[in-house]
Amino acid sequence: MELELIEKIRQTAEAIEPPKKWVGLNKGIGDDCAELSPSPGHKILLTTDTMVEGVHFSLSYFDPYHLGRRLAAVNLSDIAAMGSVPRAALLNIEVPRYLKDPASTFWKRFALGLVGRLKEFGAVLVGGDTVASPCNRLGLTLTLTGEVEKGGALYRNGASVGDMIYCSGYLGESACGLLLLKKRRSTLPFAIKKRLIQRHLDPEPRIPLGRLLKEMGATSAIDVSDGIATDIAHIARGSGVKAVIEEKRLPISRALKRACRETGVSPTKLAISGGEDFELVWTISPKKALEAERRLSAILGHAPFLIGRIKRGKGLWLKGEGRTREITFTGYEH
Amino acid sequence: MELELIEKIRQTAEAIEPPKKWVGLNKGIGDDCAELSPSPGHKILLTTDTMVEGVHFSLSYFDPYHLGRRLAAVNLSDIAAMGSVPRAALLNIEVPRYLKDPASTFWKRFALGLVGRLKEFGAVLVGGDTVASPCNRLGLTLTLTGEVEKGGALYRNGASVGDMIYCSGYLGESACGLLLLKKRRSTLPFAIKKRLIQRHLDPEPRIPLGRLLKEMGATSAIDVSDGIATDIAHIARGSGVKAVIEEKRLPISRALKRACRETGVSPTKLAISGGEDFELVWTISPKKALEAERRLSAILGHAPFLIGRIKRGKGLWLKGEGRTREITFTGYEH
Repeated sequence: MELELIEKIRQTAEAIEPPKKWVGLNKGIGDDCAELSPSPGHKILLTTDTMVEGVHFSLSYFDPYHLGRRLAAVNLSDIAAMGSVPRAALLNIEVPRYLKDPASTFWKRFALGLVGRLKEFGAVLVGGDTVASPCNRLGLTLTLTGEVEKGGALYRNGASVGDMIYCSGYLGESACGLLLLKKRRSTLPFAIKKRLIQRHLDPEPRIPLGRLLKEMGATSAIDVSDGIATDIAHIARGSGVKAVIEEKRLPISRALKRACRETGVSPTKLAISGGEDFELVWTISPKKALEAERRLSAILGHAPFLIGRIKRGKGLWLKGEGRTREITFTGYEH
Repeated sequence: MELELIEKIRQTAEAIEPPKKWVGLNKGIGDDCAELSPSPGHKILLTTDTMVEGVHFSLSYFDPYHLGRRLAAVNLSDIAAMGSVPRAALLNIEVPRYLKDPASTFWKRFALGLVGRLKEFGAVLVGGDTVASPCNRLGLTLTLTGEVEKGGALYRNGASVGDMIYCSGYLGESACGLLLLKKRRSTLPFAIKKRLIQRHLDPEPRIPLGRLLKEMGATSAIDVSDGIATDIAHIARGSGVKAVIEEKRLPISRALKRACRETGVSPTKLAISGGEDFELVWTISPKKALEAERRLSAILGHAPFLIGRIKRGKGLWLKGEGRTREITFTGYEH
């Protein structure tokens, strides 16, 4: 195990802003394993995501700072969707030759992005592994642990017939941002371009929202990573119910509509199968929905979007003008 | 997250031999995170290792079954070196095009090796992530959690002046096995070749040994992954002491000597800096050493090898005929 780079990443970030001491961390980088003390009576959550240069991102449009933030965010988002608190992270890097020097500016900026983003939510980098990339491309894997109270987390399989389906924010913006990043020229107003690109480069992990959803008694939750056509289909399948989304209720921003006019893509399609918005989608019984809406609005800064209902049956259905069609798992695949 | 391949790997292995139910596993593959209940009053350990085709292994000499076993073993070995019990594993795969089909024989055999090896020590596969390889090479990351009693694990930093240094088995055999695997022809007797190659393809994670070392009051432990010149140097540095190894006490097998005569490599050099034997090295006070030797022999099937002593000072030193030279961190690097 060559941990020099991992240790350097932690140090770089901490030199600029020392971490709050987390009492549960007994051993960080520097032994065979990291050692943590879980909070008494809590359950442990585990999640992991790999991002590879040339498949998930290109360094032609991703700066190292945002790459670090994004790597943290996609993992934090899985912890958020479980209504849980993130704790400790392990980082595995496949290092290309041109990034071999642990002292390079690239790693400093990456460290600030990654460690800083983790820290915002109380998580620390405790270990990892680095290997040489066989084909000179950067590969990044982050594994994140979380904790949740004994009662358990927020799962995908608890939705009941009659439940309302909500979404925390606008959909399709990240996918549109990626299109704009790959496009060389665009005549869109700067503010719109910036907003959409930002949504791709720097998604917001919905940790406080997830915690509140668990507290408010949401029956299921998932983060929008593959597009709602896939993500809500997971809830429907896991819960043994049918989910019906109303097309006219899909949260589509004016910015997305404007950008779609230029790029010629359907905003509805992006909203349904764009993916990587890292908003949360959840189900909740109608009884609890209004009170939840009120309290969630305080966290979100706006009311959550009611997008559909859970019915008897199976699959995910989109109700449009005049017809309802099945869209189960018609989402975006990398 | 495309978990089809990870789920397939778990199913394949379980179809042949169903796993013992582990009560601590609440959610496995199929939600945003896996969820575990830690044993009350225990600490959590985390370790991770990445193996990449063309850097750490070649499919020209690694069959998928042993590749799976080895991936499990290198991670289990880190848990063993902490005197702990393995629990849950996450698997990240960079999938080359020719292994895209989750139903391929390759993945079946890999699954049997990986899941089977984990299971031998009570660990289960609970999640992971798969991505397309950008350069058509197989990349594997395994992350493993472990548990240890409240008193804490076995670290690298507890060695005291006067402690004895022991090793659990022969050194240098794995590195020699790798040389033989890469060599096209060899006139060595089959039994010797088989033994050395086996040591590289199928290392033994020393979990029961690690548990007993912790119980017997060993002051520090590490697994031999980079070669003792590096691994024992970690103990010396971590503990703020000097470690002196006696050259004539190095555990070098007759098989290694015989193979080294053919390949022209020094067996001492391989024993010191070969690495990847995944034996444990530990320190223990002289008072406890004899009783420990007796009980450890029962687990190992032979007496552990006494290879040196801890002294005042720093660094790792090799005491040979007439002279003592420093060998701190002169080990093998991938």
